[in-house]
Amino acid sequence: MTSNFPADSVGLVVPQKMKFEEPLALECQRQLANYELIYETYGTLNADASNAVLVCHALSGHHHAAGFHQEEEAKPGWWDVCIGPGKPLDTRRFFVVALNNLGGCHGSTGPGSIHPETGRNYGPDFPMMTVKDWVKAQARLADRLGIDCWCAVMGGSLGGMQVMQWSIDYPNRLRHAIVIASAPKLSAQNIAFNEVARQAILSDPDFHEGRFYEYDTYPRRGLILARMVGHITYLSDDAMKAKFGRDLKSGQYHFGFDAEFQVESYLRYQGEAFSRYFDANTYLLMTRALDYFDPARDYQDNLQTALAHARCRFLVIAFSTDWRFSPERSQEIVDALVATDKDVSFAVIDAPQGHDSFLLPVPRYIDLLRAYFDGVVHAS
Amino acid sequence: MTSNFPADSVGLVVPQKMKFEEPLALECQRQLANYELIYETYGTLNADASNAVLVCHALSGHHHAAGFHQEEEAKPGWWDVCIGPGKPLDTRRFFVVALNNLGGCHGSTGPGSIHPETGRNYGPDFPMMTVKDWVKAQARLADRLGIDCWCAVMGGSLGGMQVMQWSIDYPNRLRHAIVIASAPKLSAQNIAFNEVARQAILSDPDFHEGRFYEYDTYPRRGLILARMVGHITYLSDDAMKAKFGRDLKSGQYHFGFDAEFQVESYLRYQGEAFSRYFDANTYLLMTRALDYFDPARDYQDNLQTALAHARCRFLVIAFSTDWRFSPERSQEIVDALVATDKDVSFAVIDAPQGHDSFLLPVPRYIDLLRAYFDGVVHAS
Repeated sequence: MTSNFPADSVGLVVPQKMKFEEPLALECQRQLANYELIYETYGTLNADASNAVLVCHALSGHHHAAGFHQEEEAKPGWWDVCIGPGKPLDTRRFFVVALNNLGGCHGSTGPGSIHPETGRNYGPDFPMMTVKDWVKAQARLADRLGIDCWCAVMGGSLGGMQVMQWSIDYPNRLRHAIVIASAPKLSAQNIAFNEVARQAILSDPDFHEGRFYEYDTYPRRGLILARMVGHITYLSDDAMKAKFGRDLKSGQYHFGFDAEFQVESYLRYQGEAFSRYFDANTYLLMTRALDYFDPARDYQDNLQTALAHARCRFLVIAFSTDWRFSPERSQEIVDALVATDKDVSFAVIDAPQGHDSFLLPVPRYIDLLRAYFDGVVHAS
Repeated sequence: MTSNFPADSVGLVVPQKMKFEEPLALECQRQLANYELIYETYGTLNADASNAVLVCHALSGHHHAAGFHQEEEAKPGWWDVCIGPGKPLDTRRFFVVALNNLGGCHGSTGPGSIHPETGRNYGPDFPMMTVKDWVKAQARLADRLGIDCWCAVMGGSLGGMQVMQWSIDYPNRLRHAIVIASAPKLSAQNIAFNEVARQAILSDPDFHEGRFYEYDTYPRRGLILARMVGHITYLSDDAMKAKFGRDLKSGQYHFGFDAEFQVESYLRYQGEAFSRYFDANTYLLMTRALDYFDPARDYQDNLQTALAHARCRFLVIAFSTDWRFSPERSQEIVDALVATDKDVSFAVIDAPQGHDSFLLPVPRYIDLLRAYFDGVVHAS
């Protein structure tokens, strides 16, 4: 830590790696013989390891949830608004763990990693990962960190799905589950948007059936399109209106297909930037994990039966203008929890920014998280 | 007509073509030196030409709005539910005209046509068309058909925008304006979806900067993606849920990127079919015409001032689950009309099918159109 960072920042952080040699059996009936997980921790684990909080990332997230990797860095980790000394997830009290999930492209073993048996990138040979698989890998990381029971597991969107899966698969290993801007399973429309993104990548000639690494290229066009269509679903119509309206780049029509409207150049720019750092195979895999998530499926399609296993307390948060995973979808989770007598709090935060709200410093949302964590008691 | 067709069908129809040699000055400051329009008519024009109704098509529509082109044809024209003897737009009373707009790919002059000066397909040299330009061309067609004043001009979606433009640009040439599932201008989100579709086409290597005709290919992948993303916006989330839910093609997960869910194979199939018959340059042009439509722009961004020119009666119809052009967007049109003392009826039809409703036999919608047209009096 250094005084160059804000007082409520965790400051300079160094990612760590953990190697796992015991094979991981996966839901797709295949296994990963060995793998690495990259993760960061913020704060200090207390003596009885009762103050640990696991942060699960969403589609394009990673292990760098808070602080900075270098002294001169423009942007902190993706959930820095939540995590730090004096922030809702107060690193003076809690030991926070954030990892990059398997199949990711930020340092954990994924399609871009070298397959130890072939010496080539895994590419399309990387096994399909599911939320259940990720949670299993996270549990192994917890074992190695000496964390028997998480004080809390939390995440937004796809991250929230991991939280639900934790509560079902490892009911004795978490005391609080914080599920934000999530859903008990994707709708047909959600799957449809994912499918457009996947087809954009799969049909890009530079994808080379997932072996683009060996061709010294990557499916840039496909990734740009995938990100553009995803991005639209992260923002509310109102947020887009407030941000761009129908503003023209130049004030007048040019009658062509160059970017005329601000929203076009914004989407193109964001898509372009994304395509430079995100792995196409990871994008496919993450969207499929979203599609497949359906914890009720293992329990006769009954979400209540699935969640009946849970023993933790729940905080479920939704955002009023989120149309990707609307408050109604969170309500389904809450209804199932209430029906099985779980201890659950539910808040719908009135915020204009749509699905993206869960990453933003929305005051009522941050206050709510703060109040919730203030009430979380850990042993020491 | 033949007895093989249903009694309320207009039966066998033969498209007609009209050549125009007088140059058409366009909003983009360019002109079309000469052009052809393909159109169909149903019913008979009465002696004082007072019973003519113009039907304007939407993004992927065309002149074949009703009846059949061949004896053995599976599907009639796109608005056959509305048009025919005994149907709401009763061809025993009305003379209906439906055309393919300029820039289209169904027979009117468009990017796929041969440029008379170069002997090559227009391709990217085809000028950008706007709703205003289309209406101007439609007015010329009316002149040639001897129709001084339309009894009604009607259309859904982009078709409804043409109706609004008619009421503003040619206030004395229509008596009724029927604007269905439309909006006074696109929102940033609407433009964003169009932009994804365009980028899919523009970035397809087979697009060849719009000159694919000369390469004996077409941007199949781009068109498929464009249609897929468009299609999602035509259906409501509920309609998708009712139609597909999360149903699997095989009943179980295969952990791969082939189509697993019904909604995936449906979208792929529809996209594939669309790519075989729709011209990529036309798709670009039609989406841009949507983006550019903003009649208030010519009137200090004031929709009231724009619509103050209108002299016809208005029927505005929206559908409850349409999220592409929601009832709130129709309300904006109605509010502007009311504020300028126009004669306007407004109905929001409760229908689960989303934007697509305007093409479907939704009973309350069809009944409403019928009742409205029953009240439309023409001279003979």
